[in-house]
Amino acid sequence: MGEFVPPATRFVDLPAGFAMKLGGELHGARIAYETFGEVNPARDNVVLILTGLSPSAHVAAHPDDPTPGWWDAMVGPGKPIDTNRWHVVCVNSLGSCMGSTGPPSSDPATGGPYRLGFPDLAVEDIADAAAWTVRALGFERLACVVGASMGGMSALALLARHPDLTRNHINISAAVHSLPFAIAVRSLQREAIRSDPRWDQGRYDEENYPDEGMRTARKLGMMTYRSAEEWEVRFGRSRVRSEPPTGSARFGLEFEVELYLHRHAHRFVRRFDPNSYLYLSRCVDWFDLGESCGGTEEEAFASMRLEKALVIGVQTDLLFPLRQQGRIADGLSAGGADVGFLALESQQGHDAFLVDTARFGPPVSKFLSEL
Amino acid sequence: MGEFVPPATRFVDLPAGFAMKLGGELHGARIAYETFGEVNPARDNVVLILTGLSPSAHVAAHPDDPTPGWWDAMVGPGKPIDTNRWHVVCVNSLGSCMGSTGPPSSDPATGGPYRLGFPDLAVEDIADAAAWTVRALGFERLACVVGASMGGMSALALLARHPDLTRNHINISAAVHSLPFAIAVRSLQREAIRSDPRWDQGRYDEENYPDEGMRTARKLGMMTYRSAEEWEVRFGRSRVRSEPPTGSARFGLEFEVELYLHRHAHRFVRRFDPNSYLYLSRCVDWFDLGESCGGTEEEAFASMRLEKALVIGVQTDLLFPLRQQGRIADGLSAGGADVGFLALESQQGHDAFLVDTARFGPPVSKFLSEL
Repeated sequence: MGEFVPPATRFVDLPAGFAMKLGGELHGARIAYETFGEVNPARDNVVLILTGLSPSAHVAAHPDDPTPGWWDAMVGPGKPIDTNRWHVVCVNSLGSCMGSTGPPSSDPATGGPYRLGFPDLAVEDIADAAAWTVRALGFERLACVVGASMGGMSALALLARHPDLTRNHINISAAVHSLPFAIAVRSLQREAIRSDPRWDQGRYDEENYPDEGMRTARKLGMMTYRSAEEWEVRFGRSRVRSEPPTGSARFGLEFEVELYLHRHAHRFVRRFDPNSYLYLSRCVDWFDLGESCGGTEEEAFASMRLEKALVIGVQTDLLFPLRQQGRIADGLSAGGADVGFLALESQQGHDAFLVDTARFGPPVSKFLSEL
Repeated sequence: MGEFVPPATRFVDLPAGFAMKLGGELHGARIAYETFGEVNPARDNVVLILTGLSPSAHVAAHPDDPTPGWWDAMVGPGKPIDTNRWHVVCVNSLGSCMGSTGPPSSDPATGGPYRLGFPDLAVEDIADAAAWTVRALGFERLACVVGASMGGMSALALLARHPDLTRNHINISAAVHSLPFAIAVRSLQREAIRSDPRWDQGRYDEENYPDEGMRTARKLGMMTYRSAEEWEVRFGRSRVRSEPPTGSARFGLEFEVELYLHRHAHRFVRRFDPNSYLYLSRCVDWFDLGESCGGTEEEAFASMRLEKALVIGVQTDLLFPLRQQGRIADGLSAGGADVGFLALESQQGHDAFLVDTARFGPPVSKFLSEL
């Protein structure tokens, strides 16, 4: 239970005894990935995509899985990340539940699922596992690593820990570390899951499942993934029904925005493993690019060996505010890369890269086409 | 149970059959208030203070209750709202649990607490009850009505429904209606309380009490009462302990900001009645100044007969963003009042009026001294 593997997923085994940054090691672990487009003869056209907290490796429609991917408008033939030119590899994060080994996976030591027996997860582990994966596929030097949201953190960790692995980088709506507002949001999301009695210290099953905790966590997430400005235009004060509900229902769903959150949350609740969510959520709090290398943030940036980078942020991002992308751009630049920085005026907040592809597409396309 | 009445509280009885805007009426209801300073012989020095969602009428230290009030820095002898000059009346909102009749109060029809049998509560009811209270105290014409946050909404409702009651007005960090982001926050707060099994459709008692739901609701509130900028300066990424917790605790309190929220929530949980919270929270969603008068917002503003008004907002307010205070100022001005508008640079967000009194004090003091 708890694993959700898209049909076009392929796998790479991690080495036995894969060492986790915060202690412990994994045996029999694997990483799920999908690939798009052909490798060229020089093998120098590989673009690695690292995802946010919840997506699978199914970034776009695939010959083996024609359902739309989570970034379909950005990845494909003729799209900004053009699979006619690039061989795209998208990796499902270690610790997730979409094919890569994580808390719902089987623990070879016990034969049952890891649950909370999964070792502490760090963004650096996600980066190391992704680096292992592309190397196992025979790629020692990538054209570009693209990471958005948590994937942008994973990308920074990868650049610092594997400085020769990629020549170029696109970093979107990410940060060198989480600030207290974002930590508070995630803390509350985790609390909602953990205080649902059916979470039961991670021992839920399909019959006894923390639906309410997951729903609240997702709603909270949605509130910080979008923006007040977008919702004001989109929903205003529209109501689901004309008559106010009465009795206990008077406190429930009445405004359009409440129904919108409810529907989004409903779709998510049973499609993501709660324990995976907790591990991934916490690792985003923990990540700090300076700490990551046992030194300073400046040293981490200086250790990277990038040629070019593009950093994009959005003015309405509540979760990773724009000044954090500015800091990444400054850091990469001080580290020696040729850096472009874009502050987009999208109204969709942190999630703009997923939906405002009219704004994100052209600069990504231009950056890649000029490599 | 569920009522929290400060020692200096006094009471005014509402008339029998007090009609509620959305239907139903109250019998044997009362409003709690405190007064500060003396009434002058002309009886024209009365300032009415309407509160946000949770405060009591104990706005400042009182001869009968020397404990600090919730706005101690602003109200008292020589303070910006100077009780050497003004006779201040602070009213606890109808529907609250600090002395005024609300869901935890005794329902004369049953002898037990109202709980969810309390009729639907509207901001207009809070305004009508406050207007009744000051008239019952013998004041037909106030010098000024001051309202902050929900109290600013109550004040607008009072001005529209009782246009001759006050000559001047100070409106702080409020809005003519709630926008979807704020509705979403409150919806989640209510959901946290309602999904706590111990809420039990409002039938909790001291032994079975929705502590977890109330704690989550309060944490969510704190996240929108303050600002990301304040927390970045105040907490950064400081940790409560140097070693990351392990096991299930790895998802719990580790960063200072998490402990801060937890402590604040802990203090609140048993000091505010959960059913009152639900009723007050929902009435803030419902309020719409235009609807309030059965006409348009412009008509509502035009019906007010104010001489002077001061409107204050804060640039970091997430809950009632600054553009909403601009709209109040424009409306009051179009309605014929002489309006001053101040956009303050406080870092403390929506709650700045409670804590950044260095910025709020001088303009409030100046406005009142010039009346």
